[in-house]
Amino acid sequence: MVLGEQKNERAELRAMKAGAGQSVQRLSVLGATGSIGQSTLDLVGRHPDRFEVVALTANGDVKGLAELAIRHRAKMAVVADPEGYQDLAKALSGTGIVVAAGGDALVEAASQPADCVVASIVGAAGLVPTLAAVRQGRRVALANKECLVAAGELFMREVSAADTELLPVDSEHSAAFQAIGASAARDIEAITLTASGGPFRNWDHERLKAAKPEQALRHPNWSMGAKITIDSATMMNKGLELIEALHLFPVTISQLDCVVHPQSIVHCLVSYRDGSVLAQMASPDMRTPIALALSWPERIDTPTKRLDLAELGQLTFERPDDRRFPAIRLAREAMAAGGAAPAVLNAANEVAVMAFLENRIGFLDIPAVVSDCLDAASSGALCRAVDHIDEILAVDLAARELARSMLEKRGVA
Amino acid sequence: MVLGEQKNERAELRAMKAGAGQSVQRLSVLGATGSIGQSTLDLVGRHPDRFEVVALTANGDVKGLAELAIRHRAKMAVVADPEGYQDLAKALSGTGIVVAAGGDALVEAASQPADCVVASIVGAAGLVPTLAAVRQGRRVALANKECLVAAGELFMREVSAADTELLPVDSEHSAAFQAIGASAARDIEAITLTASGGPFRNWDHERLKAAKPEQALRHPNWSMGAKITIDSATMMNKGLELIEALHLFPVTISQLDCVVHPQSIVHCLVSYRDGSVLAQMASPDMRTPIALALSWPERIDTPTKRLDLAELGQLTFERPDDRRFPAIRLAREAMAAGGAAPAVLNAANEVAVMAFLENRIGFLDIPAVVSDCLDAASSGALCRAVDHIDEILAVDLAARELARSMLEKRGVA
Repeated sequence: MVLGEQKNERAELRAMKAGAGQSVQRLSVLGATGSIGQSTLDLVGRHPDRFEVVALTANGDVKGLAELAIRHRAKMAVVADPEGYQDLAKALSGTGIVVAAGGDALVEAASQPADCVVASIVGAAGLVPTLAAVRQGRRVALANKECLVAAGELFMREVSAADTELLPVDSEHSAAFQAIGASAARDIEAITLTASGGPFRNWDHERLKAAKPEQALRHPNWSMGAKITIDSATMMNKGLELIEALHLFPVTISQLDCVVHPQSIVHCLVSYRDGSVLAQMASPDMRTPIALALSWPERIDTPTKRLDLAELGQLTFERPDDRRFPAIRLAREAMAAGGAAPAVLNAANEVAVMAFLENRIGFLDIPAVVSDCLDAASSGALCRAVDHIDEILAVDLAARELARSMLEKRGVA
Repeated sequence: MVLGEQKNERAELRAMKAGAGQSVQRLSVLGATGSIGQSTLDLVGRHPDRFEVVALTANGDVKGLAELAIRHRAKMAVVADPEGYQDLAKALSGTGIVVAAGGDALVEAASQPADCVVASIVGAAGLVPTLAAVRQGRRVALANKECLVAAGELFMREVSAADTELLPVDSEHSAAFQAIGASAARDIEAITLTASGGPFRNWDHERLKAAKPEQALRHPNWSMGAKITIDSATMMNKGLELIEALHLFPVTISQLDCVVHPQSIVHCLVSYRDGSVLAQMASPDMRTPIALALSWPERIDTPTKRLDLAELGQLTFERPDDRRFPAIRLAREAMAAGGAAPAVLNAANEVAVMAFLENRIGFLDIPAVVSDCLDAASSGALCRAVDHIDEILAVDLAARELARSMLEKRGVA
């Protein structure tokens, strides 16, 4: 809801500012050494007059962080792992860059004066620092899934309270954001996210049952981390994105849909009450949605390969197969249950995916374990409203425990 | 340019009005008995609380006009053909509907107090009444091609001077309008109109040479009048739309492109400097773009069949073949020449299409005659700037004469 409401006013303000001459945008990147962080800094390097880097953080890659901090003349560099402090301080000694380490330092980095904070820390670890950036009223370019999947209601409440801008970096949500434009909620009939269908799109049940991690890791269109690539193979990735979309956009669960589109060119379609559909397309390159999150309501140049539909020849679409890929249904069930259910879904999925990557369970066991956990949680203490970030984190831990016990029940070592 | 600039402010004003409660929109339809007029009135009938009909006009279909005027409780009914006056007056006697006939009466109908005038008179006859509506500062929902093809510069100057809203009704331009949204001109890289490719898309040169009118009239996706259906077969329709797009949107000739898309689902694609492409899609039903032109920046319900991409399965795209379909190149040449050249292109094409429909010339003679006329006009009195509507009308007549002489040169009776 916030996106829809905030857009008109903010667009005007920004346009006014833009008209008064392009000012430098101060940028912090939480999770600078990851894929999103690096793509962000690639764009920063291409627009030296537009961006100024404030704080950069990394989980443990001290060498990568130090290099980026020096190259982009950051004011502050923070490593989440406290043991990385000495190495980082050494690597940056004499540069004048402020060095810090640990969880509180991440929050400090997120709270530095900046115009935009790119929140690309992976996993539940991103919750607290991202929330800190929101509370400071920064524009947040959001690439962390947990903020909306596990803590969506809470997180959006904070965004509203801080009257800040939340811009999605995920290509599907960025596409929805663009296709919605300044439209009123009452005019939107549906939001349809596209899914590549992953490497197992055409595999039958027997093959899926025997699928190995190395097969699942061969994603046809995107080069991503292992966890998200497996999520793409199970289509849980799309389930999680549906949950995020529910919080980001002014729609109900029944207005959210998903279509399989193997070419990954169309990223989202927004249907309107007059029969019109607006779709966003782009070659698969995260620099396009990142650029939008940084520059909106303007746009900036990116090196993304330009779309040539005649060269592509065709775009194909098919319905997701719930029988082979039940993850989307599980995500819908978690959305409908509300409260802590999406956090349980997310944590259980993460544990199950790790077990699959370690060859401890089969591919089809991933959604089965998630389903078991949702069932178990629905009648237990995990089924409750969550009003504080600590409660979310507690649910996350408890759901991981629950998932591990479900694995044990299945005889998994 | 006007579209881009006017959108933000107007959107706000309209949103304010909408917030204050939906007021009734007074609507006049010039060309009420044609395809666009009837689709417009179909929508009016579906939204009786939203629309109030002011004036309706027709060329000569007195019976159809009288029926529509009564059904929609119009305040005024005008037939262009002066000889239709008596019949119309008789058909509407006792209804209280004001009856008039002739060219001046059309202008009077266009000038009646209304919130929106749908300009759907076909051909050069639409120029003067549409311009009258513009000068009254009405929102104009434009379905007449000649206003922009033959008189684009002049027409857009009047739109600017009257500070009025010009909303395109053509599905491709409505699509561009939606995909541009509130974007700044500097962010737009290209506008790509789609073309169905018509019934002869896969025909080779020999078959095209021998193509008959009845074959050209079998359009695969749209049910339209004979002239526009032939234009679709030659792809001159797309050439004319490119000329219109040049006037409607803040782009240069080199930023305008065209791609063949046989399913006619994607109507236009707008490419941005960050690699993002926004596309509008809809089932082929003119009620969707008409509804947008009437209701923008809001949207209203239409009965247009909802798009189901999984059901459609695929969308295909290919480059237009300039060798078999030179019309797009001719339109580009006319755009580049500027001045009266697009008016010459349009008039010559109309004469050539009529000759083809009467079996007097072959299918491939249509672009050949147009090309001959453009060449002849470029060195003659027709090559000049046009500053007044009378000059446009004079060019139109002279170009028709020229085209007839070109037909004679080809030995056409």
